Formats: sequence, structure tokens, C-alpha cells
Amino acid sequence: MNETYTIGVDYGTLSGRAVLVRTNDGSEIASAIHVYPHAVMSDSLPGGNVSLPPEWALQHPQDYLDVLKNTVPTLLQTSGIDPSLIVGIAIDFTACTVLPTTAEGTPLCFLPQFQDEPHAYVKLWKHHAAQPQADRINALAERRGESWLPRYGGKISSEWAIAKALQLLEEAPEVYRAAARFIEATDWVVWQLCGREMRNVCTAGYKAIYQDGVYPPKDFFAALNPDFADVIEEKFSRDLYPLGSRAGDLTAEAARLTGLQPGIAVAVGNVDAHVTAPAVGAVKSGQLVAIMGTSTCHVMNGDTLTNVPGMCGVVDGGILPGTYGYEAGQSGVGDIFAWFVQNAVPAEYQVLADKRGLSLHELLTDLSKDQEVGAHGLLALDWLNGNRSVLVDADLSGLIVGLTLATRPEDIYRALVEATAFGARVIVETFESSGVPVHEFIAAGGLIKNPALMQIYADVLGKPLSVADSAEAPALGSAMHAAVAAELYPDIQAAARNMSKVRKNAFVPDPHRHHLYTRLYNEYRTLHDLFGRAEPTMKVLKRLRDEAHAKAEKSGRQVEVLA
Amino acid sequence: MNETYTIGVDYGTLSGRAVLVRTNDGSEIASAIHVYPHAVMSDSLPGGNVSLPPEWALQHPQDYLDVLKNTVPTLLQTSGIDPSLIVGIAIDFTACTVLPTTAEGTPLCFLPQFQDEPHAYVKLWKHHAAQPQADRINALAERRGESWLPRYGGKISSEWAIAKALQLLEEAPEVYRAAARFIEATDWVVWQLCGREMRNVCTAGYKAIYQDGVYPPKDFFAALNPDFADVIEEKFSRDLYPLGSRAGDLTAEAARLTGLQPGIAVAVGNVDAHVTAPAVGAVKSGQLVAIMGTSTCHVMNGDTLTNVPGMCGVVDGGILPGTYGYEAGQSGVGDIFAWFVQNAVPAEYQVLADKRGLSLHELLTDLSKDQEVGAHGLLALDWLNGNRSVLVDADLSGLIVGLTLATRPEDIYRALVEATAFGARVIVETFESSGVPVHEFIAAGGLIKNPALMQIYADVLGKPLSVADSAEAPALGSAMHAAVAAELYPDIQAAARNMSKVRKNAFVPDPHRHHLYTRLYNEYRTLHDLFGRAEPTMKVLKRLRDEAHAKAEKSGRQVEVLA
Repeated sequence: MNETYTIGVDYGTLSGRAVLVRTNDGSEIASAIHVYPHAVMSDSLPGGNVSLPPEWALQHPQDYLDVLKNTVPTLLQTSGIDPSLIVGIAIDFTACTVLPTTAEGTPLCFLPQFQDEPHAYVKLWKHHAAQPQADRINALAERRGESWLPRYGGKISSEWAIAKALQLLEEAPEVYRAAARFIEATDWVVWQLCGREMRNVCTAGYKAIYQDGVYPPKDFFAALNPDFADVIEEKFSRDLYPLGSRAGDLTAEAARLTGLQPGIAVAVGNVDAHVTAPAVGAVKSGQLVAIMGTSTCHVMNGDTLTNVPGMCGVVDGGILPGTYGYEAGQSGVGDIFAWFVQNAVPAEYQVLADKRGLSLHELLTDLSKDQEVGAHGLLALDWLNGNRSVLVDADLSGLIVGLTLATRPEDIYRALVEATAFGARVIVETFESSGVPVHEFIAAGGLIKNPALMQIYADVLGKPLSVADSAEAPALGSAMHAAVAAELYPDIQAAARNMSKVRKNAFVPDPHRHHLYTRLYNEYRTLHDLFGRAEPTMKVLKRLRDEAHAKAEKSGRQVEVLA
Repeated sequence: MNETYTIGVDYGTLSGRAVLVRTNDGSEIASAIHVYPHAVMSDSLPGGNVSLPPEWALQHPQDYLDVLKNTVPTLLQTSGIDPSLIVGIAIDFTACTVLPTTAEGTPLCFLPQFQDEPHAYVKLWKHHAAQPQADRINALAERRGESWLPRYGGKISSEWAIAKALQLLEEAPEVYRAAARFIEATDWVVWQLCGREMRNVCTAGYKAIYQDGVYPPKDFFAALNPDFADVIEEKFSRDLYPLGSRAGDLTAEAARLTGLQPGIAVAVGNVDAHVTAPAVGAVKSGQLVAIMGTSTCHVMNGDTLTNVPGMCGVVDGGILPGTYGYEAGQSGVGDIFAWFVQNAVPAEYQVLADKRGLSLHELLTDLSKDQEVGAHGLLALDWLNGNRSVLVDADLSGLIVGLTLATRPEDIYRALVEATAFGARVIVETFESSGVPVHEFIAAGGLIKNPALMQIYADVLGKPLSVADSAEAPALGSAMHAAVAAELYPDIQAAARNMSKVRKNAFVPDPHRHHLYTRLYNEYRTLHDLFGRAEPTMKVLKRLRDEAHAKAEKSGRQVEVLA
């Protein structure tokens, strides 16, 4: 038997999923999931005695180790595959998800003296409490005219590593001092697997402002805070490794934990959205992959380095070695549909859904899918969670226009779906008008299960839609990187030729509907530019809202003081 | 005993309400209601054999007589008042609600040969099938530069008498020829009470283009249709009587029908919104009365005749003899809240409402009433049923902006309430900027039962709100007109001094909230002018919707043909 296998582990927000893959054809032999016992900590630390401020989101690194301990043996057991046939392991992770560790890689939260210290835990990607630090980073970068700023759409996110490190320094200087390393969780888990700190180039570029071979200079960090001057030297690393390269060999300890054989290849860490690209065969320039879930992440390789407006980032080798990896994002997609179903669908629809054995999502889709384009008379702006690409403005908000007394819930639901498709079209058109052509649109993520939604995207975009053909595309993508690290393939492109899973042109646009959608899209663009760039209405509403909440909080505090 | 009484009857859309009132102080001694057995006929004629096209809304005149027959004896019975003490009766009606009759006043639908003829019945105010005729009237009036057009906000409604008469001529010429009279239902019922055709000046002015003592000239009608040239001479009347004047004496036949004494005063007919003004004491210039229900009608007297933009009409003596009666309107108010409750409130809210013994309206009001102004971050345009005043545009639609994933149903509900208050403020400001000052805002109608809503209106308007203190304000207003017709008072002003019912300054604006609302209102004005006057988005959406529906109808018809 020549058959060999690799394992890919996809670390999500609430669980880790592992898949055992045959390397010659990408067949997924077995899969396993482990839900993080600590989930997302946003109210309090373990034990419940230490409560967390608003906007915080932490995780426990023990959960990540438990994923390995629980899923890999399950894969072996359910598949019956001999561990000697498994030649490599790779992981992908949410990002930027970072933690402080000792010089040996022990998470500070594992140390008794830091167990009750929130800053000693993992700051999950959606930890938003470093916004004041991010604001200062952006203001400073703008003032200094930093050349890297446009590569991030003109804005460094509060979710990213430098803002989170600065928050650590300023809110918990003793933890900052104790942190010999400040590291992406993906790199930390790889460290646990192979016993060496081998950071990946991808998160350094997208999340830690590593551009053109350098981080920002010392005086930039010093200008933020004198004690921050040496953050890169002290806690990050300039040794960065390309995606798909071998970080090292599986250690004996990691072999005991997983049941795998020591010495097999461990790939450099990666990011969930990025590993999905090769998993769906997107290894050429111009193949845009949209990972559509609660939000949508768009990743695409381009031959040239260009400043495309509103990117989350563009990074040399950020997706595939040797090309420029562009990342764009829609900050609310599935989240918006979930909000609607939870907040705006009347009781009688629930009754009907129950009777037909459908979810509300399915019912609303079913009721609206045969409508002629434009029949509901509605248009929405899909900014209920702000707009990342291409406006990079968290203060924007959702809008619905065209409401009449005859408007029904399924009409609004469909208009919201269409709005997210219009948002995707803006991103595609922005790529193209910036000189980065989009040749193919490939969808992955949870929303691809809804064929009516996929057809709307195809009709709106006027492009055939290819669709991921694996339920575990990120884990498959990681397993492919493991195969490259194990030298079964010379590069990820070669691995993708044999192992990727995609249904090519699964949804083809209807020319008539595309024509009608373009008329609607023209109105979307009008409102997009009006509310996104000209009229400050949405800003005024958020300002009034924030003032009202501040006032309510103040009077709430007074009540507490009085009580 | 010096005490005397009058009866007022208020003919609404679905029922008639009668009230017996003491004339010295306006005390409502008894009230009674009769629901129209035929209600609103929009699908078929009585018997169900003749079906009606879309946009039709008919009534049966027998229902109006049955109101008299059923309610007045009930008033006598429940009150125990001696009929000899009842000195007058007056009515008010929805308008424009019109019917064709013989020269003797017999409704054509009472004649056996016309029983199956839709055009022989009463066309209710909300019969909208004369839109093509209204469009032609407006186009012609604009072309000719008719001076009366601006008095109606630049647009004659399809609901009004001339459009409905022209539809009658063009769709059923034989019924048109048989119709010796084409008359408002209010004037027809008065005719049945006193035996004489005594038309009121109010509906002639607001609904039949009677301005400056004349109807449009013969050549105007001839230009619409040669056979329409003599419509005024043949079917309307130039003999018009002021509101509150005595149409005649109650006939013996009407006395038998009602149990009242023959010979008592019958007042000239009136309109529901207009009689409400004196009922709440609004008999001076600058007292604006808003009758707030499914829609809102605003009536106010002014000292001067001015073209205020977007009026439904301004008529000399249209509300009170001797002053100019202005009428404005918001086409959707309570209707919008009802739409929201029916279409956009999730099941768990229904459970909560049931548990608390509240309606959904009450629950949503309760959940949102203590919010600081602006806390929900939302702004809406209240145009789900189009906009009458001041934009006069049925193709406008509703808009909500500021939606986030944290937006809750009660937030949107409150934003919709606020939007209608902003719409009212636009009307008030338009009056004032046109030189017709608004000194007082008095609310009547079903929505005054909601104190949180009333407070929002006071805070938005920055004016104290006075509120009707009678559950039957229109019927009370009619009873007051009956008292004037019976010469117990020299005029309606004098009657109002003694008989009106109003809680003065029941809701007083909070200066802080008014300040915040003004900031929100400035954004409302921006969107109002943007979508109402500049950006054609809403028109494009309606056009796309209409095209889609036309296509669906066409393919639907084809299916029928094939089946």
C-alpha cells in the first residue's frame, strides 16, 4: 500500500474540527469535533470570580490542546487507519487570536500568579477592547504617512496584534513584562506540536504590520508609548516561515497526546480563511474565494501589489508563497439573516415553519425564492455590523428602503440576502477597477448550503459560482498543507490539483435576472456612496445613540452609588 | 326644565356612531353604534355574483339608513330622554364618499335594473379605481395652469368626486345617464332626513373643486370627455350651504324611522375630520387639530388664503364659516404600527404580551417608552403608505436607517412612532413658513389612547399637546352643529365655548428631549428632502416592482389560459 494520510485541524471560534485526509486524492476519511469547554469568555474568567469589561473576548489555551487530545485519537479510531500511514499534521486558526507566554511557550494564564488576570489569557479575534489603542495607531500612522497604512484599507483594526499588545502594556504592565512572547494561537499550537517557535508569514503580514520584509520601526512604537519601543524585538519575531513549509517534527510529547507517530511533519501555522483557498482549488491569481458564514472573508491572489481600497490587508505570500494575498471582508452576512430571524419574524411564520418541518431561514427562503427580481420593491444596505470592505467604517449601519404596508417578512429577508450579494459585487468591482482582475468566484462556508442564496449571488454578480465540495474545507486545506510539509507535493498548487474539492460553475447566472439586478445594484451603489461617503446621517445616529447610552450608564452608576 | 338635547351621528368606514348630547354643556348622555352589514365591498356586490376589480371599494346606502333606524331609538331608550327635548340632529361622514341617485334622491342601486351594476353603488372614500381619470384631470389642470390646482397641493386625488364621476361616465355611461344626481353620502343622508337636497359647502370645496364661488368651467370638463361637459349642471349643484346652517325640518318619514319628533332642526351635512375641530374647541385660527388614526388628517383655520405646499385642500368656510379651512394629511400612521405588529414582531414577544395581558402595541410601547431619545440609533421615513403632505407623492415608500445587530423590535416600533411625529412636524413647519401660524396642536382620534406616543409628539413638536376629551369627538361635533342649526347658539364658536371637550396642554414637551429630537429631526429633514425631492431611488424601486408584478400577472394569465 502506497496510501498516505495527513491530518488537518481547523480551530474555529467555538470548537476545533479535525479531518483525516488521503493525500493522493483528498478523500476525507474521518472527521471529529471538540467543542471548547471554555467557549468564548466575555463575562468572566474561569471560576466566575473575575468579571470582564464590555468588548472583551477571551479563550483558554488548554481548550486548544484538548482539541488535539480528543479529536486525533477519534480520527484514528473511527477510520482504522494505521498511524504509520499518517505523515503530517497542519492546523489553521481564527486570527488575530493572540496570547502572552513565557520564553518557553507556557501561556501566562497557566501560571498560578496570573490565573485571575484577564490579560494573561488568549485574546480572541473578536476581542474589541483595544479600540482606543487602535485609534491611536491609526492616527499616528496617518500623521506619519506610513506607507503600509493603505495596504490595510487605511485602518488597522482593534482586533489585530499590535493594538492588543499595546492594550496589554497599558492596562497590565506587569503581565506585559512577564510576557517573553506575544504570539498568534496558530503559532503557539504549532510550537506545542513541534517544540519550536516557528511563526508564519501570513499572520505577521495581515495582523502585525509586517510589510516589505519589516515591521514598523522602533520610533513608531515608541511614539505610541515609550515602553512599547522594543515590542517587536522583545515579544514578536523577525523569523517568519512561508505557508506550507515544515515547522518541524512532531515531538514525543505531542505524539503521546495525539496517538500519532513522533517525527512526522508539522506544517507552519495558518489561518482558516486562507487555507480554504487551496481547499477549493483557488491557487491561481484572480480566483476569489468567499468564505461565507456569519461574516464573509474574501481571499484572492494577485500578480501585482496594488492598493485596492478597503482591503483588510494585502500580504506578500499571505495566502500562497510567491504571490500577493489580498483579503477583503463583509462584516455582517449570516449574522444579519440570524438577526432578522430572531427579531423580525412573526409568530405565525414560526407555526408555519414548524408545520412544514423547516427552520425559519428555510421557510423565508422558500417563500421568497420564486419572486421575480425587484418584485418586493425593497433595497437594503448590508451594514448592520458596519462595513469593512470597501468603506472601512464600523460606524455605518443598516438601511432598508421601499417598505410599504404590503411588505412581508420574506420580502425583507430576501432583500437582506440581496444586499449582501450587492456588497460582494462592490468588492469584486473594486478589485477589478484597481487592476486586480477577478476571474472566478468560489464560495465556501456555511451559507453555501442555501442554493437559493447562491443563485442570487450568481445572478447579482453575473458570474458563475463555484462552490466548495467539502463540509470541512478549512480542515481539508490544512491537511493539504501538511501534505506539502511532508513533501508529498512540491507545493500547495500541486497538492490542490489532486486534493481540492470544488463544484465548478455550480450556479450559473440568468442573464435576465442579472440585468434586473444590475438596475437594483445601481441604486445600491447610489445609496452606498451617499451614506458611506457623503451624508453623515449614520454617524449622527450613532453619536446620538452613544450619548444616550453614556447618559443612561451614568445615571445607572448614580443609582448604584445611591443604593 | 330648560334642558335640551341634540343628536350627532358620525358615519365612519365600517359603522355609524350616534351620541345624544346635552346642549348647555356638551355632556354625552348616551351613545350607540351600528356596524354596516355590508361593510366595505371590495371583492363583490351583495349576493357575491358580481365581482369587483382591484382598487374598488363600495358601500350600500341602505346601511346608512339602518344606522339611523338602529342607533337613534337606542339613544332614546338607554337615556330615557323625552324626544320632545331633542331639538336637532346633524351628521358627519367620511369623504369623498359619493353615490348616483335619481332626481328624487333614490340611489340607483335601489332600482332593480341596477342591482348588479357596481357603478350604481356608493363609491367609498378609499375607492382608488379612478386613478387614470385623476391622472388626466391633473395633467389637464397643469397644462391649463388652473389656479385652483395649488390649493390641493398640486394634485387632485383619485378619491375625489370629479375623478369618480368621470370614471362612472367612462365605464358605465348608461348608469351615468340615469344618474340625475351625483352626491356626497353626507348630503344624501341629510336629504333623507329633511326631504330636500341641501348640499354643504365643505365637500364641494375639498372634493369637487369648488373654489372662489365657482366650479371649473364647462370647457375644462369637455376637454376631459365631451360627454362630461355638463356634469356640474346636470348632476352636482351650485346651491351650497354653510356648515351649521339648517338644511330643513325632520320629515314625518324620518321621524318614524328614528323615533324623533318631526320638524326638529336638521343641519347641513359635514365631514368627520371637520366636525372634530369644534368638538375639541378649535374654532380660532391657528388651532391645528390632528385626527390620528390609521392615517392622520390635520384641519386648521387660517385668516388668510395662502398656497401652503402639499395641502389636501384649502376651502373658504370649509371648516367654519368665515375662515379658510386648511386640510393636510399623513397617509400612514396607525396603519404603519399595525403593519409592524403584524409582520415584524417575533413569537417570544407575543408570549410575553400574553403573559402580561397586553396587546403587542402596548408591550412594544412599554418596552421602549423609557429609552433616552436617540438611544435606539434609528431613524425612519413614515412613507409606507406614500406621502400626502407635504410631498403629495404616492410612490414614496418607507425607510429605516441605523439598524445594527443589536436593534430590537421595540426600537424599530418607537422609531416608526417618532417618524410619524417628525412627519407631523414637517406639516406644522410648512404651515408656519407659508405664513399660516400654528398656535396650538390638538390631537383627536384613536391614537390618543397611547400616552407614550402623545408624549413623543409633544417632545418632537416642542409644543404642548391638547387632547380630545371625548371618545366620540366627531359625533359630539355633529351634535354641536345640530345645536347651532336649532338656533340654541348663534354660531359654532358659541356652541364650542359651552360644549367642546378638550384636555388643554395634556402633554407638555420636555426641553431636553425636544432638543435631542430636533437633532434627529434635522436628519429626518435631510432624508425627507433627499428621497422626497432629489434621489429617485424610491421611484426606481416601485417601477421595478410594478414591472415584476406585471410580468408575474402576465405569466399567471398565461397559466390560466393553458389550464
